[in-house]
Amino acid sequence: MNLNDLIKNIKNKNSFLCIGLDVDLQKIPKHLLELEDPIFTFNKGIIDATHQLAVAYKPNIAFYEAYGTKGWRALEKTINYLNQNHPEIFTIADAKRGDIGNTSSRYAKVFFEDLDFDSVTVTPYMGRDSVEPFLAFENKHTILLTLTSNIGAFDFQTQKINEKELYKIVLETSKSWRNSENLMYVVGATKAEYLKEIRKIVPDSFLLIPGVGAQGGSLVEVCKYGITKDIGLLINSSRGIIYASNGTDFAEAAAIEAEKIQQKMKQILETL
Amino acid sequence: MNLNDLIKNIKNKNSFLCIGLDVDLQKIPKHLLELEDPIFTFNKGIIDATHQLAVAYKPNIAFYEAYGTKGWRALEKTINYLNQNHPEIFTIADAKRGDIGNTSSRYAKVFFEDLDFDSVTVTPYMGRDSVEPFLAFENKHTILLTLTSNIGAFDFQTQKINEKELYKIVLETSKSWRNSENLMYVVGATKAEYLKEIRKIVPDSFLLIPGVGAQGGSLVEVCKYGITKDIGLLINSSRGIIYASNGTDFAEAAAIEAEKIQQKMKQILETL
Repeated sequence: MNLNDLIKNIKNKNSFLCIGLDVDLQKIPKHLLELEDPIFTFNKGIIDATHQLAVAYKPNIAFYEAYGTKGWRALEKTINYLNQNHPEIFTIADAKRGDIGNTSSRYAKVFFEDLDFDSVTVTPYMGRDSVEPFLAFENKHTILLTLTSNIGAFDFQTQKINEKELYKIVLETSKSWRNSENLMYVVGATKAEYLKEIRKIVPDSFLLIPGVGAQGGSLVEVCKYGITKDIGLLINSSRGIIYASNGTDFAEAAAIEAEKIQQKMKQILETL
Repeated sequence: MNLNDLIKNIKNKNSFLCIGLDVDLQKIPKHLLELEDPIFTFNKGIIDATHQLAVAYKPNIAFYEAYGTKGWRALEKTINYLNQNHPEIFTIADAKRGDIGNTSSRYAKVFFEDLDFDSVTVTPYMGRDSVEPFLAFENKHTILLTLTSNIGAFDFQTQKINEKELYKIVLETSKSWRNSENLMYVVGATKAEYLKEIRKIVPDSFLLIPGVGAQGGSLVEVCKYGITKDIGLLINSSRGIIYASNGTDFAEAAAIEAEKIQQKMKQILETL
């Protein structure tokens, strides 16, 4: 998907909501466990109920690998279902991969070609040649971990190199990489005040923002510092939406929670 | 596996060789492609021919994910084969994972419990709470990316924070994490001179050293600076061994290459 289609969809739906499909068999409704593929059935229910409220879906790959070949198959079915039925949806493989060049190429092929995701999250620690294999794919997007929403972010990401925090060095350095126009960045919403600084370095890039809701970030704060003329934000919510109910009404309950966020987004977009 | 068993095996075999099982269907012998599971058949051939020369095997997970559910199944069969037939072998899932706590727990469970690997490689960028879920497993080992063998290592890893390179900060910080005795570290062999500095910070920890061979590192140099009284090194070679021949003699050819390295290791161990 190219960026213009994503931006158009955000404006059409008055939403920049991304729904995290982090499926845990211990948390989904019990009645689904008797079915042949509970993970896919759950995802399909969530997607059918929320796809008009969200512009992106983000399965975290750990939750699928946790169920071995069955999990991987459920992931394949989920991305195929999205691509076939909702081609306007921006899909994110939250994989946090990164390896030496020829191995990163393998991961890129898995997520961009075989599974046909629009984007994948990548970790920057190994530098340029671990990320550029992902950037080489046209109309595919590489979402680089920059400043994460967990407490461990302060261990290294905010440490200063020549008076400048590592996450800023990552942002600046990444702009010089080949096909850097295919970069987006992960920025944890629990650190909204950092967005001001981040926008000085990447004024236009899309930011994927986890941590609104369960992890405590504020939507209004994030938008205040992070929004651009093309919106430039994807706000992710996972548990607060997909586990709103663990009864047979799980999909409707998810839609109600998604709509609450979408309505707040609509208000924000109307004031721009 | 506990460390004593690994050390005992190193001394028994006069080897600290790790063989990287990075299986690429375009590089393995053509005659295997007609079989039902070429990847596992290839791995089994390599393992059968080399297990007396090596103390560890390291599948890079990217190469298995590249083949979807079939690849994942081949990975399961490979680790099961190793655990059932060669329980003395130290197994490494080269996955370079790392995510927020509850997600890292998922990955840890996949590699340590479901697949029953002895160790997994983990990336440090997200800090303490992204790594500690891996460290919580008894007799399992977390191999933290520290200084990698690729050119991109100079983008961030060798940048200085208060006069000290990031990779050293990673080493020092990681020592304060809960169950840090379960840590090992990845250090690229192309940077043997750095090992002297690294040994000042982690004098006894095991180091996993890729990049001897294909990536140009020297075994003698690495041992000069890195070896400890309990050896403390696992030297990985992948392509140089497993793709020594792409004919029907691939396993024998792999054994010949593995033995060349093992013999050099034996010489080094005899001079200690």
